[in-house]
Amino acid sequence: MPNYDAFLSTAAANLRESAIRKMGTLLAGARDMVSFAPGYPAAEMFAWAEFAEISHELLAGADANALQYGPTRGYKPLVEVLQGVMAERGVKTSPDQFLVTTGSQQGIDLVARVLFDHGDVVLVELPSYVGAITAFRGVGASLVGVPQDTDGIDLEALDRTLLCERADGRRVKALYVVPNFQNPTGLLMSLEKRRRLLEWAERRDVLLIEDDPYRDLYFPDVSAEADTRPIAADDAAGRVIYLSSFSKTLAPGFRVAWMVAPPALAVKLEIAKQAEDLCTGALDQRIVYEACRRGVLARQLPRLRAFYQAKRDAMSASLARHAPGVLTWTPPRGGFFLWARLNRAITAQALLEHASTRGVIFVTGDAFYVDGEGADTLRLSFSAPTSDRIEVGVERLVAAITETTELSRPAAAR
Amino acid sequence: MPNYDAFLSTAAANLRESAIRKMGTLLAGARDMVSFAPGYPAAEMFAWAEFAEISHELLAGADANALQYGPTRGYKPLVEVLQGVMAERGVKTSPDQFLVTTGSQQGIDLVARVLFDHGDVVLVELPSYVGAITAFRGVGASLVGVPQDTDGIDLEALDRTLLCERADGRRVKALYVVPNFQNPTGLLMSLEKRRRLLEWAERRDVLLIEDDPYRDLYFPDVSAEADTRPIAADDAAGRVIYLSSFSKTLAPGFRVAWMVAPPALAVKLEIAKQAEDLCTGALDQRIVYEACRRGVLARQLPRLRAFYQAKRDAMSASLARHAPGVLTWTPPRGGFFLWARLNRAITAQALLEHASTRGVIFVTGDAFYVDGEGADTLRLSFSAPTSDRIEVGVERLVAAITETTELSRPAAAR
Repeated sequence: MPNYDAFLSTAAANLRESAIRKMGTLLAGARDMVSFAPGYPAAEMFAWAEFAEISHELLAGADANALQYGPTRGYKPLVEVLQGVMAERGVKTSPDQFLVTTGSQQGIDLVARVLFDHGDVVLVELPSYVGAITAFRGVGASLVGVPQDTDGIDLEALDRTLLCERADGRRVKALYVVPNFQNPTGLLMSLEKRRRLLEWAERRDVLLIEDDPYRDLYFPDVSAEADTRPIAADDAAGRVIYLSSFSKTLAPGFRVAWMVAPPALAVKLEIAKQAEDLCTGALDQRIVYEACRRGVLARQLPRLRAFYQAKRDAMSASLARHAPGVLTWTPPRGGFFLWARLNRAITAQALLEHASTRGVIFVTGDAFYVDGEGADTLRLSFSAPTSDRIEVGVERLVAAITETTELSRPAAAR
Repeated sequence: MPNYDAFLSTAAANLRESAIRKMGTLLAGARDMVSFAPGYPAAEMFAWAEFAEISHELLAGADANALQYGPTRGYKPLVEVLQGVMAERGVKTSPDQFLVTTGSQQGIDLVARVLFDHGDVVLVELPSYVGAITAFRGVGASLVGVPQDTDGIDLEALDRTLLCERADGRRVKALYVVPNFQNPTGLLMSLEKRRRLLEWAERRDVLLIEDDPYRDLYFPDVSAEADTRPIAADDAAGRVIYLSSFSKTLAPGFRVAWMVAPPALAVKLEIAKQAEDLCTGALDQRIVYEACRRGVLARQLPRLRAFYQAKRDAMSASLARHAPGVLTWTPPRGGFFLWARLNRAITAQALLEHASTRGVIFVTGDAFYVDGEGADTLRLSFSAPTSDRIEVGVERLVAAITETTELSRPAAAR
């Protein structure tokens, strides 16, 4: 056998498996495991019957292109629908700004390839979405973290960090943010902060990468659509690359997402996509298009908001019952995730080992930190398990915390 | 507006649009255009009714994962089916060698990212598949071409080129080949050459990237399945990364393809795919799986072979009627493409301008050459147009050749 290491690119030699995807594998192999790990939407909420009807019609053969290669930019009627979706979000667009992507992960990856060279600095929130971290690191970008307040990124720390990096001679090209119900913290960035971020980007000549998969899933009891206004909505200066997705609202199995970029960048992103997979699935795009056109998505959204809000309530209640003093958390105002901090002198990594043997998994928070911090944090997804399973999972989690704490004490103190 | 050029990565600054995809855009805008350009399979041959039935069953909701995120390696039952497909092709595999990809283009792109650094040399056939050229160039690889004989790559030139590159201090990691009905030439590599290629790869410590999308589409009048035996079938030393696809046999709209690599490389390819799009579409993979399991694919293949063989005959006959002396070509023994050389002192680029105004397009051969050659060559796809349209297209093409030749003569000679 050849020594394959000698054949690897520098990027490949540095590749590390995503902590979340690894959890998925772990989960697949286990019975009776409660998974708070991957941010999977709840499959029972998918519009199965409508999708069945739509796909049956699409495959009647009237549209010969429904199974053919398609344009790299995306299925044209879908792009038109997306212009409407963006308008509802307050963002005026032209068709030449759009690219339909194979999930938002591809959009992030394309941005990475088009913008960053080895050593370029990308600023990210602390903590930040691990899939973006992976994609940016994949092209050799250097990630520098900026702390967040409860209303989003710390703007003073942000500017200080940028100036510091530039003073050191490094090229800072972009800031990556998830303003709505951030993955992993669930934080919602204030509107005031969004406006100031845009001014900052203009002043410092930086691009903003705005990743927005969760905005439709605000929880009506504590937030409203107006709270989720994209940064891109006020971007007169062409500073924002905006990404969003149908994965959390219709279904992730379609792998249909989109991005909106300044036309000059959209051209480059399109060519990068040609190299990456030519085009997104023709049938998938048409199913999503029909689901939008027929009002399936519009009917789903209020149901999903109520559904995930109830899941958040279930997890909050279980934690309040079993974990006060043990964990610190703030119930999120939307999205799929509850971010928690351990009040015991143990790491989430150590906890995960015990937790998984007790039948509950989560993602350790350190995976989302680019500065090596976060050892005492964990991300709990409440989106997929039922409320009953959430209760079981939280009980197991707290038992595992107790066990881990006990075992990590110096023997003399036990 | 910012100066976006200042934000581009080196790779993005060098990105060029695929000649084939550009043709697709041209085609989409035109009426009554005969397209010999993109290698689209004929949509009327897709198993529409079976796909409709399968998708309807899949969306009945019995399998909650049919619209969910899935494992990066691919839908497990599909991987099992693929092991069977590979066995039929003479290749023994283990499950840890497989990766289901979002089209073979993604497979090629993942190989590029995992293997090549800026400046690494990839050897390719002259001419070679433009999508591979784009993906390899996208990571900064340096492409060096090797001429082909009628039975495939010139082995002596290959070894000479490799030694020459290494003598110049460059790192040659791999050779990319399309042994079966090559895109764009339609050439079939001899079995003897395949065996010698494998020995050469072992002797020179090089990996082989074997791209095999057309092998099922051999034309029974002049070739047989045995002629298409993959190089991977005799690869005891772990030198081959093999790629194949359902795009030409079931439908490209599903974006389902696969690769088989040595396990140590498959691990890296999987992680690279995590960064690129997390996973291939869940529904698409299940439709393809069911189409295999229910025998749809097996029933399709003989029909497709006869169908495309007839298309090849139609184009050969049209060319024989209208283009003798004007073009030189060898009818292919399988696949989608007929490769032709102009016998007039004009370039295919100049011809394309006239041809497109006359209502016929093709891909200029120079797009497939990494050495700037091929100005007098063109690739004619006969897969999508009907036989009648092929006749119309060839007539238009020959008229355009006459016109272009006429106009390119010095004025005095007219």
